[in-house]
Amino acid sequence: MPHREPHGRRKPPQKGAKPYQLKGRVWVDGPEGTFLGYGRIVLMERIKEHGSITKAAKSMDMSYRHAWELVDSMNQQAPEPFIITSTGGKKGGGTVVTKEGEKVIIKFWRTQDALRRFLEKEGIKYEFTESGK
Amino acid sequence: MPHREPHGRRKPPQKGAKPYQLKGRVWVDGPEGTFLGYGRIVLMERIKEHGSITKAAKSMDMSYRHAWELVDSMNQQAPEPFIITSTGGKKGGGTVVTKEGEKVIIKFWRTQDALRRFLEKEGIKYEFTESGK
Repeated sequence: MPHREPHGRRKPPQKGAKPYQLKGRVWVDGPEGTFLGYGRIVLMERIKEHGSITKAAKSMDMSYRHAWELVDSMNQQAPEPFIITSTGGKKGGGTVVTKEGEKVIIKFWRTQDALRRFLEKEGIKYEFTESGK
Repeated sequence: MPHREPHGRRKPPQKGAKPYQLKGRVWVDGPEGTFLGYGRIVLMERIKEHGSITKAAKSMDMSYRHAWELVDSMNQQAPEPFIITSTGGKKGGGTVVTKEGEKVIIKFWRTQDALRRFLEKEGIKYEFTESGK
């Protein structure tokens, strides 16, 4: 089962790329299962950018239904909502990322950065040579 | 999509368990896709224990075919084979983990240990309180 990039086929190995690479992913489990992960954080960023779940979902090639479920799952599990949708008003409402949501986006990218550094450091162990040493 | 344990249903939250937990997994990609991962390493350990792919697979509730494919994938990508099967002979052959295979098992468990420490350290960021701070 090769690992595949989201929404795409596996990239062919690049010239000069190391033949063996330590990979990893992190996520946060909450009271009801997955709470935060790469896709959920990107979705929040897109909602912030577009002010709309529909547009955010479209920009990620994701169904509105799926995007809404992810937002609902985060809001249900978060101590305070990360995303708020208002209806009506002069501008016809909109969706915003709360201060708590913005904080968690920053936290998660810091963790991703730390993971990248971890994988680089630990990955040295897996630079096998042809002699297998 | 809640994360599920392999071969089982999600465990209910334990009493006193933290409501939010940073989780992670690591694997090694090789020239042809996934090369090493948790399941593959456990499989190698079981082969070492049982001296047989069939028995190792059975002990993990895995089909022989799947186990064989994982072994083949590792051997094809490794600089030197990790698992060798001999046929015939007085004892009717058997399957052994090579010295290179044993080395990689140790490496991978060290990486898993390092990952556990990483997640504990980074996970502190996600101890949300009711006030969301």
